[in-house]
Amino acid sequence: MVEAFKVPEKDAIRVAGKALRESTAALIAKMGVPQEDAELAADVLVTADLRGVDSHGVSNELRVYLQRYADGTQNARPQMKVLRERPASATIDADKGLGVIVAPKAMDIAIAKARETGIGVVTVMNAGHMGMAAYHAMRALPHDMVGMSMTAAGAQVLPTFGAEPRLGTNPIAVAAPAGEEQDFVFDMATSVVPVNKIRNSQRMGTLLPPGHIADATGTPIMEPMLAPENFRLLPLGGTREQGSHKGYGLASVAEIMCSLLSGAGFATRLPRSHYRHFLAAYNIDAFTDVAGFKQNMDEYIRDLKATPPAPGHARVMVPGQPEWEMLAERSEMGIPLHKEVVNWFRGACAKMGVDSAI
Amino acid sequence: MVEAFKVPEKDAIRVAGKALRESTAALIAKMGVPQEDAELAADVLVTADLRGVDSHGVSNELRVYLQRYADGTQNARPQMKVLRERPASATIDADKGLGVIVAPKAMDIAIAKARETGIGVVTVMNAGHMGMAAYHAMRALPHDMVGMSMTAAGAQVLPTFGAEPRLGTNPIAVAAPAGEEQDFVFDMATSVVPVNKIRNSQRMGTLLPPGHIADATGTPIMEPMLAPENFRLLPLGGTREQGSHKGYGLASVAEIMCSLLSGAGFATRLPRSHYRHFLAAYNIDAFTDVAGFKQNMDEYIRDLKATPPAPGHARVMVPGQPEWEMLAERSEMGIPLHKEVVNWFRGACAKMGVDSAI
Repeated sequence: MVEAFKVPEKDAIRVAGKALRESTAALIAKMGVPQEDAELAADVLVTADLRGVDSHGVSNELRVYLQRYADGTQNARPQMKVLRERPASATIDADKGLGVIVAPKAMDIAIAKARETGIGVVTVMNAGHMGMAAYHAMRALPHDMVGMSMTAAGAQVLPTFGAEPRLGTNPIAVAAPAGEEQDFVFDMATSVVPVNKIRNSQRMGTLLPPGHIADATGTPIMEPMLAPENFRLLPLGGTREQGSHKGYGLASVAEIMCSLLSGAGFATRLPRSHYRHFLAAYNIDAFTDVAGFKQNMDEYIRDLKATPPAPGHARVMVPGQPEWEMLAERSEMGIPLHKEVVNWFRGACAKMGVDSAI
Repeated sequence: MVEAFKVPEKDAIRVAGKALRESTAALIAKMGVPQEDAELAADVLVTADLRGVDSHGVSNELRVYLQRYADGTQNARPQMKVLRERPASATIDADKGLGVIVAPKAMDIAIAKARETGIGVVTVMNAGHMGMAAYHAMRALPHDMVGMSMTAAGAQVLPTFGAEPRLGTNPIAVAAPAGEEQDFVFDMATSVVPVNKIRNSQRMGTLLPPGHIADATGTPIMEPMLAPENFRLLPLGGTREQGSHKGYGLASVAEIMCSLLSGAGFATRLPRSHYRHFLAAYNIDAFTDVAGFKQNMDEYIRDLKATPPAPGHARVMVPGQPEWEMLAERSEMGIPLHKEVVNWFRGACAKMGVDSAI
């Protein structure tokens, strides 16, 4: 969702990804997290910032993560435990480890399994937030594998015709390697929009399009309007007529694969801070010739990009393309953080005895 | 999509599932298909009819299947060939076998692999239509596994902002076993609606809701209106604002997992009759306690059903529930086929020397 949450240029301070990564890692390490783990967490956050996924970057997540270490919700030195294991599968109890650290490790296990058997699937229970889901799926790319990640979070989204939230925003991400083209990277929440986008429109006073959210009774709002203070998120599709039972079903699938398959409960039975994750790697070489796959991916991506655009639109993009373009821009120009975020970050560094590199 | 394509009661003749299954198998066998395979194909079709998925039942598909055998598009006695295989994976060339026959066989291979390694994934290329995707996912249920099936079909759906179709309606189905509750069965096309639903509304002269389809230029139609003769299907979401890039991405994911992973090309590079499939089985026992999983599924399903409904709605349903209810009704009352379909069916039986049981 590259277009959301953009910081107005006048309020933005551009910081280099490398500096932000270093200082973020140093802050997380100060919470008792081993240096290597802290660097992994920082890489997940700053990769989101560089790709333009600001909702899952430093400004939106780091403060929460530090707080969760401080109040004991998250365990800085978790002992990850394999609960069950087969040649192609494993279930892990993350011992309250932060998801941005345990999910990449779980994905590495899935990748190792896929190298041996063709597929690797790892489910994770008792974990924290995994950040940008695409990060974990993309971890399979250098291994010539297709990666998939899903996560199940707290209940925020209505089932179709429902008046109370039962579903997480439960994202689904898939990454597949191309040859000369940029890799295919797809990452969607199963709700129409994330809650942050609504809060943002409330702050900015912008009208929401019809079908974006429901009112407090669960009725989809079908006129363009300012978001009311009390609203409900709708599953992808928005209304039943427009396919919200599909978004509802996808959110349930993510819950089943992440939560029930890992032996955890589900959103309305678990503490908000207990996230469940699903990581899968598909070894391309186990299915077909890797070079042929990548050549087909190149042709597929070019074919999609070459679609004639509808009137009023300049081009058709492929999943991941806006983020690749943003990565190129921000790697060159730096990440635009709101000046208030920069102030907070520098203050946190000063308070915790970290030399801020930004 | 239980509500679509309903035959008006005055035009319907109720036929018993068993009779329809027998005669359908006999008709398919007459095309040179081995009896056992013909029975499998008939079971896929009649299961769709019994579950209320009329779009994928006898009335909508059988005539096409028979034609495809007659004109040589489909091979009545295919030699399925394993192109690559690993302990948890395989790729199969279906030798132009009909999907409703080869997909269940591929799923059985996935199930056998999942028993050994925890997961089984089989991709299939060079196949025909798989019918109702849920059938194949559900095949995993008696084995205490979660099943998943996807298929990639001919280009009918626009990518977001595009003016020409590049995506199939590429369905995704997932089935997960419950304990006392009815099993979770989810099956969605990645387009807002299937093309048959639009054709149906054209025949009936009913207005389509906004965002359902695009006009011939690729512009989404945002007023309630009669479907124009020349229209385009939109990916789930409908418009970019409402999340059509998510439906687009899901359709692409299905294409990648079915087509590129099996070494086939993709929709715009393949003959319309060349379908690609993806079948996966997840052995629950490899991840967690099976009894505990089913108990959690029961609680999850009950929790969803117990969601207070929004004003104007009687209840919240779970994925698969409308189809379970229809199965109960039609198992008792018979399948309502349009009298013209029954006439055609009896005529086809007479012509091909089959004793019609309906």
